[in-house]
Amino acid sequence: MNTLEEFNQYRSQMNEKILDLDNKVLKRIFSLDSLTFQEGALNIATKELLGLACSLVLRCDDCVKYHLEKCKEAGLSKEEIVEAMGIANVIGGTIVIPHLRRAVEYLEVLEQNPAE
Amino acid sequence: MNTLEEFNQYRSQMNEKILDLDNKVLKRIFSLDSLTFQEGALNIATKELLGLACSLVLRCDDCVKYHLEKCKEAGLSKEEIVEAMGIANVIGGTIVIPHLRRAVEYLEVLEQNPAE
Amino acid sequence: MNTLEEFNQYRSQMNEKILDLDNKVLKRIFSLDSLTFQEGALNIATKELLGLACSLVLRCDDCVKYHLEKCKEAGLSKEEIVEAMGIANVIGGTIVIPHLRRAVEYLEVLEQNPAE
Amino acid sequence: MNTLEEFNQYRSQMNEKILDLDNKVLKRIFSLDSLTFQEGALNIATKELLGLACSLVLRCDDCVKYHLEKCKEAGLSKEEIVEAMGIANVIGGTIVIPHLRRAVEYLEVLEQNPAE
Amino acid sequence: MNTLEEFNQYRSQMNEKILDLDNKVLKRIFSLDSLTFQEGALNIATKELLGLACSLVLRCDDCVKYHLEKCKEAGLSKEEIVEAMGIANVIGGTIVIPHLRRAVEYLEVLEQNPAE
Amino acid sequence: MNTLEEFNQYRSQMNEKILDLDNKVLKRIFSLDSLTFQEGALNIATKELLGLACSLVLRCDDCVKYHLEKCKEAGLSKEEIVEAMGIANVIGGTIVIPHLRRAVEYLEVLEQNPAE
Repeated sequence: MNTLEEFNQYRSQMNEKILDLDNKVLKRIFSLDSLTFQEGALNIATKELLGLACSLVLRCDDCVKYHLEKCKEAGLSKEEIVEAMGIANVIGGTIVIPHLRRAVEYLEVLEQNPAE
Repeated sequence: MNTLEEFNQYRSQMNEKILDLDNKVLKRIFSLDSLTFQEGALNIATKELLGLACSLVLRCDDCVKYHLEKCKEAGLSKEEIVEAMGIANVIGGTIVIPHLRRAVEYLEVLEQNPAE
Repeated sequence: MNTLEEFNQYRSQMNEKILDLDNKVLKRIFSLDSLTFQEGALNIATKELLGLACSLVLRCDDCVKYHLEKCKEAGLSKEEIVEAMGIANVIGGTIVIPHLRRAVEYLEVLEQNPAE
Repeated sequence: MNTLEEFNQYRSQMNEKILDLDNKVLKRIFSLDSLTFQEGALNIATKELLGLACSLVLRCDDCVKYHLEKCKEAGLSKEEIVEAMGIANVIGGTIVIPHLRRAVEYLEVLEQNPAE
Repeated sequence: MNTLEEFNQYRSQMNEKILDLDNKVLKRIFSLDSLTFQEGALNIATKELLGLACSLVLRCDDCVKYHLEKCKEAGLSKEEIVEAMGIANVIGGTIVIPHLRRAVEYLEVLEQNPAE
Repeated sequence: MNTLEEFNQYRSQMNEKILDLDNKVLKRIFSLDSLTFQEGALNIATKELLGLACSLVLRCDDCVKYHLEKCKEAGLSKEEIVEAMGIANVIGGTIVIPHLRRAVEYLEVLEQNPAE
C-alpha cells in the first residue's frame, strides 16, 4: 500500500469513527465541509485552490494533502497549483517552507498515481 | 475623509516610511509581494481571492480590507467574494466571524465608493 | 450608549447583514454556532467556559467579550471565569496578556451593567 | 510497548531532561502548569476539558493526548469529552479535523488501556 | 497625554486590576514574565529583541509596542531593531506587514519621546 | 544514517525540487531567506537566536531544528540557546512544551554529532 492509499484509508476510517460518535455538531461540520466545496458562483477548481492556500498558511499537512488531491481531480495544472502555493508562502512566510516541502513531495506521489 | 481613504492613506504613508528605513530585507518583502499577485498561470482575480481567503483564516483585518479592494478592482462579483469568505470561515471556524463582520462592513464601503 | 450596548448593537447589525447575503455556507455556520452551545452532555455554563478559554488562546477580543457575557448569563461566578482565563493564559502564554487586560476591563463593564 | 506507554515514556523522559537543564524559567513554567490544573473554583474535570479544547483549537496533538488522558482520569464520560471536542472544532474550523481524527484514535487506545 | 503615555497608563492600570483578582496562576505568570527578561546567559538587549521578534510573528501589537520600548531602554539602535523586525517579517510572512506598519509608527513616537 | 543526516538530506533534496519548479516567487523566498540571516547590524548568532525563538512560538519543529543547528554553528552556548527557548516558552505558553521536548532531544543529537 503506497503513501497515497495509506493516507486516504486512515482518513476514511477515522471519518467513519467520528460520524459513529453520533454527535450532532461534528456531523454538521462534516456535511458543511462537503457543501462548502460544491460548485457555486466560484467553480470547484477555484474553491480547491482556496482550500489549498488556506491549509498551507494554517500549516496543516493533512489538509494540504487532501486539497492537493482535489486540485488534481479538478484538473488544475501543476503550474497553477504551484502558483497558489507560492502565494500562500509569501503570505504565511518562511515558516510555511517545511509544509511546502511535504506538499511538493506529495504532489509527486499524486503524479505517479493518477486516478483512473 | 472616509474610512476607505483613511485606510489607504495610512497604508501608503507607512509603507513609504518602511521603505525609507532602507533595510534590504524589508524592501525585498515589499517587491516580492507585488510580484506575487501579478498575472501568471493563475489570473489576477483568482490570486486576489487566494489573498483574501488566506487573510481571513489568518484573521488579519487590514490584509482582508486590502484584498477586498483588489478583488473589486479585478472585477469579481459580490457573490464570488462572499463564497471565498464562506470557505475561509468554514476552514478557520467561528473565530473568523468577527473578522467577517468587519469584512462585510468594508465591502459595503467599497460598494459606496466605486473606483472611478 | 455604553460600550456594552455599542458592541452588541454592532454585532447584531452585522450578523443580520451577513445572513442577508443569503450564502448557504455562512447561514449554516451561524446555525451550527447556536446548536453548539446548547445544553447537552455538558451544561451551558461549562460550554461557555470552553468558548471563553478557546477565544482567549486564539486571541479574539470580540469572541472573548461575547463568551464573557454568556458566562455571566449562565450564572458563573467571577472566580470561575477568572480561573478559566488563567488556564487559557498558561496554555497560550504571555502573548495572551493584552487580551486578558481587555477581558478584565469588559468583565467590569458587564458587572456594572447587569442584565435585567 | 503500546502507543500509550510509548507516548508517556517519551514525555516523562524529555520532561526530566528539560528540568535537568536547570533553567529557572523552564522550571517555573512546569510548576505553573501543575498549579494551573489543581482543584479550585472550577473542579479538575472542568479544567481538563478547558485544557483539551484549548489544545484542539491550537492544534497540538501531544497536548490533546495529554488532556484526553487527564479527562478520563477525572471521570469524564465519552459524551462529555466528545462535546468539548465538538465545540473546539466549531470554533477552530475544519482545519482542526485532522487533529480530531488523531484525538478519536487516541481516545480509543485509552479506552482499551484503562488505568488500573 | 500622548499615545505613549496613554498606552503605558492603560497597561499599568489593567495589570494592577489583574493582580487584584488575587488569582495565583495569573500572579505567577506576571512574575515569571519579569524573571524571563532579566540578565542571564543572554544580555537584556538580546532578550528584548527576542521578545520583539516573537511578538511580531505572533502579531500582537501591544506586545510589539512593549518590547519596542524595552529595546530602546536597552540601548539598541534603530538599525538593530529594524533588522530584528525584518527577520520576523520574513519568517511570519506578509501577514505581518500591518503590524510592522504600526510598529514603525510607534518607534517614531518613542524617538520623539525619549525617556528622561 | 542518523537523525541529523536524514533530516538534512531530506531538506536539501526537497529544497532542490522546489527550486526546480522554476517558480519565480518561490525562488525569491529562498534567496530572501538566505539574505535575512547574513551578518548586518546584528551578528549572525543573534539572528539565529531570533530565528530559533520565532520558530518555537510558531511551533514549527523543522524550523526549530534548522535554527538549532545554525545556533551551534554560530558558536552559541547551550545556556544561551536554552535561555532563548525559555523566552519563547513563556511568550508562547505551555502549548510550546511538546516542541521544546523535541528541540531538547535534537540539541542532544547535535551535541553528539559535532560538525567537523
